[in-house]
Amino acid sequence: MLYSPQRVVRETDKAIAGILGGELRLLRKIQAFVIASGGKRIRPLFLYYLAHACGVAPKELIELGALLEILHAASLLHDDVVDGAEERRARPTAAKIFGNKEVVLAGDHLLATGLRRLNQLGNPQYLEIFTHAVIELTTAELLQLQLRFDLKTREKDYARIIDGKTASLFCAAGALVAVMRGERDFYRSETAGLGLLLGRFFQLRDDHLDYFDPVRLKKQGLQDFTNGTVTAPLLLLLQSASRSELREIRAAWQATARTGKAAGTSHILSLMEKYGIREKSENQLEHMQQELLARIAKLPEERPRQVILQEFQKILAMGTKKSALSNTT
Amino acid sequence: MLYSPQRVVRETDKAIAGILGGELRLLRKIQAFVIASGGKRIRPLFLYYLAHACGVAPKELIELGALLEILHAASLLHDDVVDGAEERRARPTAAKIFGNKEVVLAGDHLLATGLRRLNQLGNPQYLEIFTHAVIELTTAELLQLQLRFDLKTREKDYARIIDGKTASLFCAAGALVAVMRGERDFYRSETAGLGLLLGRFFQLRDDHLDYFDPVRLKKQGLQDFTNGTVTAPLLLLLQSASRSELREIRAAWQATARTGKAAGTSHILSLMEKYGIREKSENQLEHMQQELLARIAKLPEERPRQVILQEFQKILAMGTKKSALSNTT
Repeated sequence: MLYSPQRVVRETDKAIAGILGGELRLLRKIQAFVIASGGKRIRPLFLYYLAHACGVAPKELIELGALLEILHAASLLHDDVVDGAEERRARPTAAKIFGNKEVVLAGDHLLATGLRRLNQLGNPQYLEIFTHAVIELTTAELLQLQLRFDLKTREKDYARIIDGKTASLFCAAGALVAVMRGERDFYRSETAGLGLLLGRFFQLRDDHLDYFDPVRLKKQGLQDFTNGTVTAPLLLLLQSASRSELREIRAAWQATARTGKAAGTSHILSLMEKYGIREKSENQLEHMQQELLARIAKLPEERPRQVILQEFQKILAMGTKKSALSNTT
Repeated sequence: MLYSPQRVVRETDKAIAGILGGELRLLRKIQAFVIASGGKRIRPLFLYYLAHACGVAPKELIELGALLEILHAASLLHDDVVDGAEERRARPTAAKIFGNKEVVLAGDHLLATGLRRLNQLGNPQYLEIFTHAVIELTTAELLQLQLRFDLKTREKDYARIIDGKTASLFCAAGALVAVMRGERDFYRSETAGLGLLLGRFFQLRDDHLDYFDPVRLKKQGLQDFTNGTVTAPLLLLLQSASRSELREIRAAWQATARTGKAAGTSHILSLMEKYGIREKSENQLEHMQQELLARIAKLPEERPRQVILQEFQKILAMGTKKSALSNTT
């Protein structure tokens, strides 16, 4: 029997509650906050339908999705401390409400509780995949910090960052399915590749919207630029700009880095217009989207495959909002 | 062959280097900082000699000690963010040098790398013990935060906090040895009990020194009192003080909580003198020390047992310095 997406979310939430428990008042509050604000359970949904689309559905499938979500929640908590972001979806962050100390500890507790439960499922390959994902995730975040306000960031670095930051958990979902199918080289499986591509697409799209979504621009300006993060649109611009324009971009960034406030962003946007960066970026995304749809279409089982496509279309339709999929969700 | 303590430390450090690696410059720097400042490798030493004292020494013994140390280092990094401590052993903290974000991520990276390697050792019981220790540790730290400046903290809570904060990793070492001996109920084993008692003793002694060590007092005053942490000496005082004295203690604490600066500490110390708290606390420690020595004496193998005793005496001799064993080391 194939659950509806609503049912998968409900069962996942039940499984999360069963795993976490936790006796301390403070811990329960932080958990409730991060799990409740944790969004749309995209990762468990992807895992569930991908497994079914490949004709596998071990009894621990829902629980594995719950554990992916717990890992994600732990990383969100640590991210709250990490990026000093004042708000997440217009709500106050956990760190602001509960304190930095509290949030770091609660994240550690979530992570350890999740991995302990995972260990009890009795398959060491699951644990390999989860711990590997955390390593990829933290390496990517550290690399991003190391390259802050560095215009020499290469495309290779950017790819590494988005693969680690967002794609790692989708890739992990795909690798879990490969394990369920008995594939030994699960990291290089079709399903892990599909997860990686999906995660990349989500992050690229998010990075695109950061420059070109009018609603977001009005509210927050260029977040990535202001934070000193090089993303795809800026990389495209750097490839096209003249030497004197490169100097202007560098000057704008240096001023931003110095003051912590966005400087020269309207000039950046007009340069992007001059070189048609929006269209180039859209072409990249379009190309990737076609690749994704083709890969999804090749999955063996039709009904679950259809649900993946539907859910994917739903996400694409949420065009102008901060997507529910990136690391910051 | 039984290694000397120097050799155990050297082999442990080699194993740590082999596990960590890590390609990012920033990551390597933070790792070097926390591992180099990580002190005396007490946990690996305890594990090594306890195992030998019980007649077991699997080939992964040194590596397990290295993993205990990595876990400890991860918790120190998160603790740096956590308690806003400005200094650790008079050196600048990692968070101050590298930044909060960086330190949280590096801690996560250490933890995940350690658990991934542990998983590769192929014994799920090891993983159970390590993840359980992290849960105990973070629960204890969160409980301590929840009870900050709460004079109604009960002895039971205090016991829970020190068991989690410091004793959990020593208890884990003891549980690992029980697994090596093939005991199924490894948490309730003799060796886990010994580890727990040793960890408790170290923390109690540290808490004692926070009130009664003249060198430390001169330098830092009453740290635990100022931080709003109820420890054994204060619990003893609360049991003896009159109603009006209790009001004075409460007032001193409220002023400390309000201003963030120690208030009324000399009065607290004179009340402690009035009720002989120092002696009572020393008696507690003495009693515990005898119990520890008796339990160590019962370990089967003589030479490793002797080394445990020697190392223990060495630690006791470092009386007036902040002990190298507590959570904050």
